[in-house]
Amino acid sequence: MGDVNDDGPRQATRPVEIRRFRRGDGGSVEDSDLVATEEPFEIRLGYSRSDGSRAEEPVSVTMRTPGHDADLAVGFLFTEGIIRARGDVQSVTPRGQPADDGLQNVVRVELKPGVTVDFKRLERNFYMTSSCGVCGKASIEAVAVQGQYDVGATKFHISGAALERLPEALKTRQSVFEQTGGLHASGLFDADGAIVTLREDVGRHNALDKLIGHELLKGTVPLSNNGIIVSGRASFELMQKAKMAGVPLVAAVGAPSSLAIELAREFGITLVGFLKDDCFNVYSRADRIR
Amino acid sequence: MGDVNDDGPRQATRPVEIRRFRRGDGGSVEDSDLVATEEPFEIRLGYSRSDGSRAEEPVSVTMRTPGHDADLAVGFLFTEGIIRARGDVQSVTPRGQPADDGLQNVVRVELKPGVTVDFKRLERNFYMTSSCGVCGKASIEAVAVQGQYDVGATKFHISGAALERLPEALKTRQSVFEQTGGLHASGLFDADGAIVTLREDVGRHNALDKLIGHELLKGTVPLSNNGIIVSGRASFELMQKAKMAGVPLVAAVGAPSSLAIELAREFGITLVGFLKDDCFNVYSRADRIR
Repeated sequence: MGDVNDDGPRQATRPVEIRRFRRGDGGSVEDSDLVATEEPFEIRLGYSRSDGSRAEEPVSVTMRTPGHDADLAVGFLFTEGIIRARGDVQSVTPRGQPADDGLQNVVRVELKPGVTVDFKRLERNFYMTSSCGVCGKASIEAVAVQGQYDVGATKFHISGAALERLPEALKTRQSVFEQTGGLHASGLFDADGAIVTLREDVGRHNALDKLIGHELLKGTVPLSNNGIIVSGRASFELMQKAKMAGVPLVAAVGAPSSLAIELAREFGITLVGFLKDDCFNVYSRADRIR
Repeated sequence: MGDVNDDGPRQATRPVEIRRFRRGDGGSVEDSDLVATEEPFEIRLGYSRSDGSRAEEPVSVTMRTPGHDADLAVGFLFTEGIIRARGDVQSVTPRGQPADDGLQNVVRVELKPGVTVDFKRLERNFYMTSSCGVCGKASIEAVAVQGQYDVGATKFHISGAALERLPEALKTRQSVFEQTGGLHASGLFDADGAIVTLREDVGRHNALDKLIGHELLKGTVPLSNNGIIVSGRASFELMQKAKMAGVPLVAAVGAPSSLAIELAREFGITLVGFLKDDCFNVYSRADRIR
């Protein structure tokens, strides 16, 4: 693909004046603190109409932490099934005027000529079609239709000891979280449990989209030799994104939901929950853990 | 308003077979565990067209934990500014066929004749209009246009000691979280720090929408004599919902985002973060805490 404009993390935190209350202090004191930045973000899509002319449409507005905006835009479009490969993307560029604070909150993803977009599907959620009804089973079927990679057949193994080292490794790498306590993290790790990519965001889905977008732009998707660790809980949507990127193992520091487990079992993804430094639970495909 | 069909929490948890790994056990054991249920949920709106004829449109699909579905539907429509008062609602009823597991994942909210809906605004996010651009300041202006209540002028006070008792009180009341670790909670409390309503969900926004929808149906909105505690972090969207419901104080167990703080300061909402049993931070309007 062509140009990608992304300047990495910037203004991910902001200083604020606060008042601290502590029992025994006999009152409160003024202090300053760093908080995680949250700003709206619009993804605009440039594409070819059926007659060959070019068009532009907004496809998503989300609240996000600034930084890695190109990764986020490309990752979102890929995990939602709007683009199918890195080669669909011509360029990713900022659009519009920077706000007062210098942030540019609109990104345009230009698709290559000839790449078509199903806007009808975009109007409804990924996991919802009028034909298949509204239930967990139908949601999983929608992922099956969109997903390109057979993660169930992927040969990936990791030791339990390597898994148990991951939460501490994630924390060590999580620079902004250390400062603010306000960000979700997603980390990509290899079969030895080494974290190779980490992304943070106020939104849990955004953190994973940033990570997957980064890997897609690098050319490493499907991520069949990697696992993903998330700092919070494992929901349906996080598992959907993992499946779209071909990831065979997802480990959550928190709890999984019922539908996350059903999705993992349907597609043969190893799902680990409540991951701590001396124990964890496995909800599907425990055979990948040695 | 007329009929409301809601049968409270049902199937909020599900049993699953898991494999537990514990260091020192020399391997893993099979076990069973309860997980939080996650299922898709569609809100359909019945309304009058300009010529007086009736119509029905889907307005939202979200992943949620089953139970209090009517509260969720009404709370979502109210905090998004689609309905303005309890009196706009004629009835709330399940729609469509129950899924295999007996869950009914579609609810229809019927508006009273003459209540109009701005579907154009629904097409974009609440906090995003094409005229005002994409930035935090514009997002806050959008809330100012929608909000009906002057929360800044609200006389509400609470002691620091009462605030510090809230996290434990929330945990005690959080039945499903105790079992699964998988749910976000929102609690409504009074000036003495007593929790009067609690709602739980896999989605943080849903938990707050369920709570606000319940109060709207009870006729207690604006919630000017109450505060809200949330089990996680305080984001822009949670603060937006609090403002829409006229809540003068929001307390988060986790961190607030930059835009949550900006919104709180703009509208005079007291924002408490990192609430623990012996300390907390206040980001705006500390004068409400004695």
